[in-house]
Amino acid sequence: MGQKRIRDYGVIPGRMKSGKRNRITDVDGVQVGHCTVKNEENHTGVTVILPGVDNAFARKYVAASYVHNGFGKSCGLIQIDELGTLETPIALTNTLNVGVVWDALAEYVIRQCERDQVPVKSLNPVVGECNDSQINHIEKRGVRAEHVWEAIEHAREDFDEGDVGAGAGTICYGLKGGIGSASRVVELYGKEYTIGVLVQSNFGATKDFVLDGIPVGERILQHKERMDREAAGRSGRGDGTCERNGKDERGRNSEADESGSGGMGVSQRDQGSIMTILATDLPVSDRQLRRILRRTAVGIARTGAYTGHGSGEVMIGFSTANRILLKAGEEPQAQSVIHETLINRAFQGAAEAAHEAILNSMVCAGRTVGIDGQVYYGLEELLPYIMG
Amino acid sequence: MGQKRIRDYGVIPGRMKSGKRNRITDVDGVQVGHCTVKNEENHTGVTVILPGVDNAFARKYVAASYVHNGFGKSCGLIQIDELGTLETPIALTNTLNVGVVWDALAEYVIRQCERDQVPVKSLNPVVGECNDSQINHIEKRGVRAEHVWEAIEHAREDFDEGDVGAGAGTICYGLKGGIGSASRVVELYGKEYTIGVLVQSNFGATKDFVLDGIPVGERILQHKERMDREAAGRSGRGDGTCERNGKDERGRNSEADESGSGGMGVSQRDQGSIMTILATDLPVSDRQLRRILRRTAVGIARTGAYTGHGSGEVMIGFSTANRILLKAGEEPQAQSVIHETLINRAFQGAAEAAHEAILNSMVCAGRTVGIDGQVYYGLEELLPYIMG
Amino acid sequence: MGQKRIRDYGVIPGRMKSGKRNRITDVDGVQVGHCTVKNEENHTGVTVILPGVDNAFARKYVAASYVHNGFGKSCGLIQIDELGTLETPIALTNTLNVGVVWDALAEYVIRQCERDQVPVKSLNPVVGECNDSQINHIEKRGVRAEHVWEAIEHAREDFDEGDVGAGAGTICYGLKGGIGSASRVVELYGKEYTIGVLVQSNFGATKDFVLDGIPVGERILQHKERMDREAAGRSGRGDGTCERNGKDERGRNSEADESGSGGMGVSQRDQGSIMTILATDLPVSDRQLRRILRRTAVGIARTGAYTGHGSGEVMIGFSTANRILLKAGEEPQAQSVIHETLINRAFQGAAEAAHEAILNSMVCAGRTVGIDGQVYYGLEELLPYIMG
Amino acid sequence: MGQKRIRDYGVIPGRMKSGKRNRITDVDGVQVGHCTVKNEENHTGVTVILPGVDNAFARKYVAASYVHNGFGKSCGLIQIDELGTLETPIALTNTLNVGVVWDALAEYVIRQCERDQVPVKSLNPVVGECNDSQINHIEKRGVRAEHVWEAIEHAREDFDEGDVGAGAGTICYGLKGGIGSASRVVELYGKEYTIGVLVQSNFGATKDFVLDGIPVGERILQHKERMDREAAGRSGRGDGTCERNGKDERGRNSEADESGSGGMGVSQRDQGSIMTILATDLPVSDRQLRRILRRTAVGIARTGAYTGHGSGEVMIGFSTANRILLKAGEEPQAQSVIHETLINRAFQGAAEAAHEAILNSMVCAGRTVGIDGQVYYGLEELLPYIMG
Repeated sequence: MGQKRIRDYGVIPGRMKSGKRNRITDVDGVQVGHCTVKNEENHTGVTVILPGVDNAFARKYVAASYVHNGFGKSCGLIQIDELGTLETPIALTNTLNVGVVWDALAEYVIRQCERDQVPVKSLNPVVGECNDSQINHIEKRGVRAEHVWEAIEHAREDFDEGDVGAGAGTICYGLKGGIGSASRVVELYGKEYTIGVLVQSNFGATKDFVLDGIPVGERILQHKERMDREAAGRSGRGDGTCERNGKDERGRNSEADESGSGGMGVSQRDQGSIMTILATDLPVSDRQLRRILRRTAVGIARTGAYTGHGSGEVMIGFSTANRILLKAGEEPQAQSVIHETLINRAFQGAAEAAHEAILNSMVCAGRTVGIDGQVYYGLEELLPYIMG
Repeated sequence: MGQKRIRDYGVIPGRMKSGKRNRITDVDGVQVGHCTVKNEENHTGVTVILPGVDNAFARKYVAASYVHNGFGKSCGLIQIDELGTLETPIALTNTLNVGVVWDALAEYVIRQCERDQVPVKSLNPVVGECNDSQINHIEKRGVRAEHVWEAIEHAREDFDEGDVGAGAGTICYGLKGGIGSASRVVELYGKEYTIGVLVQSNFGATKDFVLDGIPVGERILQHKERMDREAAGRSGRGDGTCERNGKDERGRNSEADESGSGGMGVSQRDQGSIMTILATDLPVSDRQLRRILRRTAVGIARTGAYTGHGSGEVMIGFSTANRILLKAGEEPQAQSVIHETLINRAFQGAAEAAHEAILNSMVCAGRTVGIDGQVYYGLEELLPYIMG
Repeated sequence: MGQKRIRDYGVIPGRMKSGKRNRITDVDGVQVGHCTVKNEENHTGVTVILPGVDNAFARKYVAASYVHNGFGKSCGLIQIDELGTLETPIALTNTLNVGVVWDALAEYVIRQCERDQVPVKSLNPVVGECNDSQINHIEKRGVRAEHVWEAIEHAREDFDEGDVGAGAGTICYGLKGGIGSASRVVELYGKEYTIGVLVQSNFGATKDFVLDGIPVGERILQHKERMDREAAGRSGRGDGTCERNGKDERGRNSEADESGSGGMGVSQRDQGSIMTILATDLPVSDRQLRRILRRTAVGIARTGAYTGHGSGEVMIGFSTANRILLKAGEEPQAQSVIHETLINRAFQGAAEAAHEAILNSMVCAGRTVGIDGQVYYGLEELLPYIMG
Repeated sequence: MGQKRIRDYGVIPGRMKSGKRNRITDVDGVQVGHCTVKNEENHTGVTVILPGVDNAFARKYVAASYVHNGFGKSCGLIQIDELGTLETPIALTNTLNVGVVWDALAEYVIRQCERDQVPVKSLNPVVGECNDSQINHIEKRGVRAEHVWEAIEHAREDFDEGDVGAGAGTICYGLKGGIGSASRVVELYGKEYTIGVLVQSNFGATKDFVLDGIPVGERILQHKERMDREAAGRSGRGDGTCERNGKDERGRNSEADESGSGGMGVSQRDQGSIMTILATDLPVSDRQLRRILRRTAVGIARTGAYTGHGSGEVMIGFSTANRILLKAGEEPQAQSVIHETLINRAFQGAAEAAHEAILNSMVCAGRTVGIDGQVYYGLEELLPYIMG
């Protein structure tokens, strides 16, 4: 905590009021926990979003998913779509550790249900992922079950952003990405509701980056090249290295390389992704929630990207209103839902919160060196050069 | 033609090269025709997109659709999704004339097939729509079959944009909208392919409008208020009228009114929509085409909107490569498709062309008075005030 | 009325109790009307399903659609899917008259709203269709707006089945098809709810027909050949004609012809379709309704078909519980929904009612001669031969 | 091997010719392997389907998925839907071991790619599941990575069906279910193609079971009750136990219990599922493949079930034609696809093969005792009583 966020630099995406913490945890009951795995081999981790403090399996949440670009390995969406419910925490990690995290999340819920004496024979763990293989030795698959449990244990309302948890190894617009969050207050029916978003940002080419409406990508590319040169000079590395780095970055972004003819091209482009988790206390049906969720893609677009082929963009949302019990009652359940004509403010809130969450994920993350020596700068250190 | 387009004002959306005409008709064979219906009662029309010069029913086009926001009445998408083909021209019109236009389009294809001696017992007319009820007396349903046939007859490669055909009565970001088009050249495999987009723009709140990366909405609102006042003064209309207009516009855009408490609120918000037609000569499968098509939504987002509840956003695309015959041949058909890893440039081209097409639809449309006396300014006349 | 239905022949599909009328109109408020268009040129018509007696646009119905096989031209599904509501009656007709019927339905709702002083600038007519071109000169497009209005005017709770309205020209399993209906009572929460289904049956190859669990297709084919021969003898037509008929039928069904090499093959196979309309008073969400709706496909499968390429199978459902007003109220709306674990009986009811509705559509339809002289027998006259 | 299959008892579902082995492995290159985990605690396992003998990641398969009822936890479908490709073997297991199996499958592919010098930073393991908690102590989660690798190692063209691998603990129509397979030969373009299906059957209520068109459910229920009584007598267990068993079975199937009022009701009903894997050498696009895949649901319906709420029904298909390389070539790839008008035979083949695969899964599985002492009979031992 105590991290400076994008608002602290005078950039305020959108027009709506943010919540108290300007985080997904402004939605009452929601908690977020990280476990960062950093050692010689790994630079990765796990981030969990707990939808509430009680047993999600026993009292399910109205939920929805939306696949904006399905080049991704997220698990659990089929059942969310069919039944409109979430019954476990949501865990985020790297692409190749989805299985391990799924297993640990299942274990956690089974133990929790044993404690709560809730019989469980079937459950639907929800796991999202980004590919962090430019910073993390992803093939080592360094996440273990304990990391998941630790993240759950440490979940709270105030949480770090940037280079932590599942965001430890991610890259966004060629800079260091990570975990970011934001929220918006939606006034309806004379009440204040909240829409909170958390992202794991790992997408975009530098040249496409737009900040505060300004296309700053080219400026960043120029500055990076200069900084790379200086860094190479200082480190005593020769021009060859420096040029390689420069080329890599340009390669990643240039149209020429996107033909797949370049050596690094294919795997690099396939690594992108952004996971977007949306929470709200708005009383909405799963259909309404899906509509709201789709507008987070507008927030992504506002940062400049066009959702590249390799950028798996998956959105998962839940509402803390209208919890659903395991068993049927004596009467049909009364579910409270907003009138469809009022949904626009929720749309706008989702777009704005996603937009700001991405910028927070970047500005809270510091400079990191990739596994091939490539430097991924933090947005913060670049701000003086690009905001001028 | 001879209309000034957005590039003529120095605004060039994106980075990719545009095609020769910078229109959807840069895709070889594609033609566009309008029939504008303007009289005392009506201010509406029809626009048709012919995918090629020969019989589309006899030699079908690979096609895809994508529903970004399904508050709309477009017809023909179910079969496009199931079979991946387009077998008729695409016609655009106003919301309440979809049936008439469907019928006229069916008639046209049946007659065409009679001439070409192609037996036809079933066909899938594709009709899109926007709600033009703020400028057009939509309930008069002024479009007739002859208007459709006239639009087809007049189809050509050079065509007008702005306040014509199906764009006669549409409003975009509170200014006059209409028909717009643009194209991008996609270099792949050492060849130049084209992506062309045509839009019928009828969406967005003024305050959200972004031009050339600059959020110009507030500036426009201020300027409009001043112009409205002046116009009211000149026309001798009293302050009441002037205020009413001012209020209407503010009502349309203000958060307060979106609660549905305002009298005009509901029907106004329901009127939005943007139809997006994409043509390409890229050899792509229907699945690839759908992926490309989805990126036009990024182009829409780049103009500032968040896809409001009432803004039915429907995309329809076709490829002129890999035509499909009515009957099976002696061998499986060889279809040529690009490698998935090369699809990013098509994504980018789709986003850029959609973005520019929307701006063209606005800048080519002149000032128009709505049925309630409300003035819808053309973007062109505002440019001096908002680009400064 | 007074028609003998499949139960009158001892065939009772499924195990659940049927409603009072064993029709879709057992759901309170639902009415069905036909207008049959039979003259020298046409053998077709319109069938309308009114979801209730009041204005559907002013008080919308929870609704869902499901496209089982999208080789069809139904209109209105996009908005049903996005908003989960139905706001007009549903009309069924032949494939090439969808536009005319859409237009007439729009006209009807606009007039109705004028009477009820409900402002309407946008509405979503729902039109389904089957291709009746083997009995009807479909290219004459014989349905007019007045036919739609007449069908609406004549709508009631008791209605004819078989060779009427939109079922006048349809063929099912090579026999005469048409309109059919059935219902099931679903006991939940100590109350009796109803699921009603109406079909426009126009699908299936004779050889696949299964009646009461017995594959009777081959038996029918043999009997038809004999009857065709006798008919040819009586009518003085020569062997050639008789053989032609026999060949046509075999052609339609035989594997050999499905290669498309046969002359009639393509267009015949493309003509199939079944429209399935489901009504219920169960309090369900649109998601739950879609799940229920999908089970009507099981009812179709129980009659033997495998949903051929050309058999557009489209399902549309609505619930009369939880009506939705045009404008937002002071509070979020309380919607009553059944618990998901209780949904199985609704699933079973949907499957059984669809199954029986198809059989009713067939057994209520009498022998009809196609436009090429081909005889389509009624199921009733064949029952003595196939029920053994 | 050497197992008697449903044809050996004179039941031949459908009309089309089956392949040489009448198994999914009739599609050239496809192999199937099992690892059965049976010990004091576990009665479960893994079944893998290898799409071919070479590296699937390096040369991907055209693939499609279809979710018939999404109450399930299958992984990998999002990417299959987006990209239309399969790049790993498919593994089936029990519900709570999806994570472990995902992880082991990832490990296998990473090792395989290391051997083949194919760089891999991202891969999409495909895992399906059924809930076997009535026979298996599912909460013990007894499947380990080695079981997956052993199943892969033992993959071959001839493989066992019934109570093996992922089918060890499954129940179908209240009898013992398991793994089953079948195939059909599709003649097109003068060539013989094959459609092969493999199922993991775990669905259906006894009373709904239809065998050879005959509804045999009630007969089985009566016979089971008698056998349960006899078994209770022989084992010296008292009438109480016997009645309990009888009640359990009735409870599972009776309408009364489906209200969720019964103690066991909820969890039992949630356990169902059927995984359906389809392989073919037909040259089809991913869209065509999805259409074919959907017809396996007709095969399921032909065994009597209506796809209950808890019966997660997920279909995954792949074609061995038109393999897709990692990198783009010099030219667009030529993909060979069948003409859409010829697809009906593939539809029929898919329905028939799925139908027969289910029956094989049942008839190859022997009597098994559940974890609560409940006896699940094999279909074979019941045939004399129900076929008579």
